Amino acid sequence: MNDRLQALRNKMAGINIQGMIVTNPVNVKYLTGLEAEGTLLITRKENVYITDSRYIEYVNNTITPFDEIVVDDFKNISKEDYENFFLFCENVGFEENYVTYASYKKYKQVYKINDFVEAECLINKLRIIKDSEEIKNLEKACEITDNCMEFLIEYIKPGMTEKQIATKIEKYYMEHSDGISFEPIVASGENSSKPHAVPSDRKIQERDIITIDMGCKINGYCSDMTRTIFIGEPTPEQKRIYDLVYNNQMKSLKEMKDGTMIKDVARIVTSDFELNGYNLVHALGHGVGLEIHESPFIRVANDNILKENMVITNEPGIYIPGNFGVRIEDTVLVTKDEPKVLTKSKK
Amino acid sequence: MNDRLQALRNKMAGINIQGMIVTNPVNVKYLTGLEAEGTLLITRKENVYITDSRYIEYVNNTITPFDEIVVDDFKNISKEDYENFFLFCENVGFEENYVTYASYKKYKQVYKINDFVEAECLINKLRIIKDSEEIKNLEKACEITDNCMEFLIEYIKPGMTEKQIATKIEKYYMEHSDGISFEPIVASGENSSKPHAVPSDRKIQERDIITIDMGCKINGYCSDMTRTIFIGEPTPEQKRIYDLVYNNQMKSLKEMKDGTMIKDVARIVTSDFELNGYNLVHALGHGVGLEIHESPFIRVANDNILKENMVITNEPGIYIPGNFGVRIEDTVLVTKDEPKVLTKSKK
Repeated sequence: MNDRLQALRNKMAGINIQGMIVTNPVNVKYLTGLEAEGTLLITRKENVYITDSRYIEYVNNTITPFDEIVVDDFKNISKEDYENFFLFCENVGFEENYVTYASYKKYKQVYKINDFVEAECLINKLRIIKDSEEIKNLEKACEITDNCMEFLIEYIKPGMTEKQIATKIEKYYMEHSDGISFEPIVASGENSSKPHAVPSDRKIQERDIITIDMGCKINGYCSDMTRTIFIGEPTPEQKRIYDLVYNNQMKSLKEMKDGTMIKDVARIVTSDFELNGYNLVHALGHGVGLEIHESPFIRVANDNILKENMVITNEPGIYIPGNFGVRIEDTVLVTKDEPKVLTKSKK
Repeated sequence: MNDRLQALRNKMAGINIQGMIVTNPVNVKYLTGLEAEGTLLITRKENVYITDSRYIEYVNNTITPFDEIVVDDFKNISKEDYENFFLFCENVGFEENYVTYASYKKYKQVYKINDFVEAECLINKLRIIKDSEEIKNLEKACEITDNCMEFLIEYIKPGMTEKQIATKIEKYYMEHSDGISFEPIVASGENSSKPHAVPSDRKIQERDIITIDMGCKINGYCSDMTRTIFIGEPTPEQKRIYDLVYNNQMKSLKEMKDGTMIKDVARIVTSDFELNGYNLVHALGHGVGLEIHESPFIRVANDNILKENMVITNEPGIYIPGNFGVRIEDTVLVTKDEPKVLTKSKK
């Protein structure tokens, strides 16, 4: 059986979950490698992937005997078959943050499940620690993001609009990667005070401040980086805020190692910002992998511990409404010793 | 109050739904025009949009007094405020096909809701009929898709890969629209036998068959069109299948008018395909609007009736595994008389 399915089965056994329905396409891809529409069933005796005629050919060509996944066309599955999948399971797990209320009710009925339990954390606990292949993909995505930033530094000139620059980023990623990992943010001047600004028709001006937040995908794995750049000299206030954000990013980075409490890392920045009269209005960071935002979320409310081979962002930001904002963000690999910063663009 | 919120309130009153929580971003955009992260509450006395500091500036700049929407930052809402929103509502509706099981439980608890009812159909029933502004956006998106196809007919040459062509489509749409409405399908030779093929490194050959399925967005509204084209002469079998698909598309199109049973339209194609020894392995079509796939779904199992100003696709296809496939798809506006085909590319 493939390693990830085996690892999930071990986790299930650990808390006596006897069956599982996996429907989130990201989790299905993680566990099987498949990118199709379908449902993965972990039953007592086998792993079953149910799909439809649109994908059968692709799925059969992708799955290997080593995977130990039985492929079924949903058209060939009878009402009784559905009821039999989990016949001997006392309970069945599902992804409570993916499955809609309507699907929850439908699955419970179609598969005749008595005890349908929230078990998404089992898969999240696997995905949160990256293996060497995943890290390779993340490193590659970050490298391409650095190259894109280098390209942009030369490319951006006063007179261009935010939208033009955002389109250029998308094109760059389309040529050099598997595409963007999220819609790029290009926020200039007063727009930079909105953490999630949408690129507008505002033209870049002389002496502008520009926040660029962008990332791409390699084999499904995402990169995420933000740089705040200045056309010409920043104002003294801008410089002061930039240094405050930068110094905090350096301080939090140092603590991003195996064994540190996540809340402690977040508190470094929130406390120092507050001391200086500002608030960190979003999380300090988040996990990055097959999704651009995934566990762990780096906030004061998170009681978990950082572990080796987690990949997370480190993105303090200060936003002064109607005026300007500064955010600096890197994607970071947590190790036993020094954290490894995967995005290396100049700050 | 804006027309769409008023229309939703009327529908709610019609079946005595006294409050509603709207969280699907597509529905929030439809009802408010907002593209942000937040929750829309329809309470007895007002419409409330709850968002966070990342979006507050944008939201306040977008909402007009005419909308009658109160904007709140979630940070300023207390536990008691949440419990008071629906204090005098005997029941509250939610979107059962969007809200996850975990959110369902959370909302029920946070808002202290006793009777939390599945009410997504109220919004779907509004969205299924397009108003003149929506139709204008859909027409524009279809026009750009026709232009893109015209461009491709000149552009595609033997030796190019499917991926290269797909990337060209994405770039075309980035320059001429608000971007793709879904990842384009470019499936050549034997790949065309997979209805949902992912563009590969296969090179286009002389005498190839190529299925191209693509669409773009204008102000959020999607277009959707498929053409199956031949480099050089089709084989007699390809020609026979193409004609069968084409003739069925023409026959089903004729019936796409106000008052027709949806199942009757679908049956025209499924019956004729079966008579000829083939199966229609997917739905004949689907609604198109803010989402690329939305109600109504054009299948034999749908007991509803087509109505004026629905916008749907008409996409019969035949797929011969390992050999080739033919699909022809248009986006169609349903009217009282002749259906209006919005995608006009040559077949």
